[in-house]
Amino acid sequence: MQSQIPFTEQDEMYMARAIELAKKGRFTTTPNPNVGCVLVKNNQIIGEGFHQLAGQGHAEVNALAVAGERAKGATAYVTLEPCSHYGRTPPCAEGLKAAGVVKVIAAMVDTNPQVAGKGLKILSDAGVEVAYGLLEQQARALNLGFFKRMEHGLPYVTCKMAASVDGKTALKNGQSKWITGPAARQDVQLQRAQSCAILTGADTVMVDDAKLNVRQSELPQSLPTDLPLRQPVRVIIDSRNRLTPELALFKIESEVIIFTTKVDKSKQWPHFVRHIEVPALDEKVSLNAVLETLAQLQFNNVFLEAGATLAGKMTELKLIDEYLFYIAPKLMGCDAKSLVNFAPLTDMKNTVNLTFKECVNIGDDIRITATTHVPNT
Amino acid sequence: MQSQIPFTEQDEMYMARAIELAKKGRFTTTPNPNVGCVLVKNNQIIGEGFHQLAGQGHAEVNALAVAGERAKGATAYVTLEPCSHYGRTPPCAEGLKAAGVVKVIAAMVDTNPQVAGKGLKILSDAGVEVAYGLLEQQARALNLGFFKRMEHGLPYVTCKMAASVDGKTALKNGQSKWITGPAARQDVQLQRAQSCAILTGADTVMVDDAKLNVRQSELPQSLPTDLPLRQPVRVIIDSRNRLTPELALFKIESEVIIFTTKVDKSKQWPHFVRHIEVPALDEKVSLNAVLETLAQLQFNNVFLEAGATLAGKMTELKLIDEYLFYIAPKLMGCDAKSLVNFAPLTDMKNTVNLTFKECVNIGDDIRITATTHVPNT
Repeated sequence: MQSQIPFTEQDEMYMARAIELAKKGRFTTTPNPNVGCVLVKNNQIIGEGFHQLAGQGHAEVNALAVAGERAKGATAYVTLEPCSHYGRTPPCAEGLKAAGVVKVIAAMVDTNPQVAGKGLKILSDAGVEVAYGLLEQQARALNLGFFKRMEHGLPYVTCKMAASVDGKTALKNGQSKWITGPAARQDVQLQRAQSCAILTGADTVMVDDAKLNVRQSELPQSLPTDLPLRQPVRVIIDSRNRLTPELALFKIESEVIIFTTKVDKSKQWPHFVRHIEVPALDEKVSLNAVLETLAQLQFNNVFLEAGATLAGKMTELKLIDEYLFYIAPKLMGCDAKSLVNFAPLTDMKNTVNLTFKECVNIGDDIRITATTHVPNT
Repeated sequence: MQSQIPFTEQDEMYMARAIELAKKGRFTTTPNPNVGCVLVKNNQIIGEGFHQLAGQGHAEVNALAVAGERAKGATAYVTLEPCSHYGRTPPCAEGLKAAGVVKVIAAMVDTNPQVAGKGLKILSDAGVEVAYGLLEQQARALNLGFFKRMEHGLPYVTCKMAASVDGKTALKNGQSKWITGPAARQDVQLQRAQSCAILTGADTVMVDDAKLNVRQSELPQSLPTDLPLRQPVRVIIDSRNRLTPELALFKIESEVIIFTTKVDKSKQWPHFVRHIEVPALDEKVSLNAVLETLAQLQFNNVFLEAGATLAGKMTELKLIDEYLFYIAPKLMGCDAKSLVNFAPLTDMKNTVNLTFKECVNIGDDIRITATTHVPNT
């Protein structure tokens, strides 16, 4: 297999196009990754495609279908190494080979252990010129959740928080409607629609009587997908079996997983509710076990919408990859409730260090994206 | 006096230049406003200037000095209505008239009651064509402090706060070094250097043993001024006379004003320390009285660097015009100390509403500028 070679400006342009295509799948491909493919011959795009739904054609297959016979002699730009294994569809590496593609440039090698270079090897062994490492960082960013699961056996967890600029999420009496404005709440709906699961605690469900679903009416008018949006699975941690089927959440017919330490069989649940028992830690559900289970169930991206206690525990356990802080132009005062609750610190050396990635205006509010990763990893 | 007339692109370009010039004075002109002036004849700049130091030449005088005889027949672009009164220097309106300037475009009418249209009237009465209202908003932004004092008899108060992204300023044990990084601290020095006064409470001075001065070594290498920086006057509220001359603040030989309800004459203070008695409210210094006094002393811009209590009181009394939040990519937890302390709220309707003006990266931190003003005023 050929290692990285110098890429041209043309190469970069086509790969950037493939990345744009891949993004179109971000509401629908789970548990598969988002992938885009562009086929080029004589400096012309002769076919392009992206992966839309698991079980349906991969990006390469869709692009080849457009190109037809013309694919012979073409170069394929793919945002991820073509797959080498028989899943619900045949391996794409074989498809590209069979179509007579002469060169394949992959943005990155797939870290899925089922692929991991094997796709490129199939091509290389067949005499197809292969290269990889073009716009790798952008390609990786398409599938943070998929790669986290492949590489660490855990989902990528994004913790969403809405607060006043003095870091308060509710008044002392519990009032919190509304801290952020309609544009921020719309943005949260968009984030939910891109997530495999919404994770929260029983408290949040009970106190807010939250539905935690994606509501078409609250989404932006124009979405970058024509496919029906999926409803993320609503995952609730209920160590002490406090949830009851009467809550608003259970009136929405869409999958729910309840993690508990011991299922209480006395309650009657709707058919779409599933209980999973996981080991207890200090009489509470082990959060590590919850996330490992979610990864085994092929959840790539988990959107955590929790109160200060669960968010604090997840922070302490280093289970959060990214925070989205929706900050409103308001002051609520010392007396109001704080964002994250974890064991008191006694030394500034022990603060939880993040990296600010982005800060954008969302209506009258701002949204700060921060990761728990150190830069360049 | 002629009212607003249509301005050309050329006009706007010259006024934009005058505004850039005015900014050069922002470290030095207090208590005077920042003003820039550009003289143009035959579509060429024949002289430009800005106000540098109170008591020295105004912008128009400096520009006329450059232009000399050529000023005859020129158009003057000034960021503020030329003055009409004899202060430490003669009126600029007379100077422009005497130099034979034929047209004066002012970005805005001066709201200083000593001027308030009289400058433009002198010119108009002498047959000089006058117009105003070009880039007025930008011109106004040059002198928020000066206009606040002229229009409301109060200084423009900027409240600086440094916090973690969860809104915490110190650990429970008081540790707070350092929340923000060196770039943010350098930016604070730059803000101090542009302020007439730093305002704080005795607590902050005593707990941090803060010097509250501008330190050349901590400023950015290149500053937009060649003039020696002024030291803002350090203003401390000490209702209960708890300050002592041994504190680090009093080792820096630079003006200090201490506001108290009753001066304690038992302590020996350095010559640069001055006490001012103001009326008490609930046994504490009246903050309204403090700010009115500072305005009478010709302070335009007050930089508030206070703890949660004083910042909270100032917030409640609506004495703050602008907040600068330096937000660090850290979480410190619920247990740590919050940003602003004011009387507990019981209804979300009563949160303190701000308007986000800007959000920029400062090193690893971000700086959010928020005003207490409603948009478009």
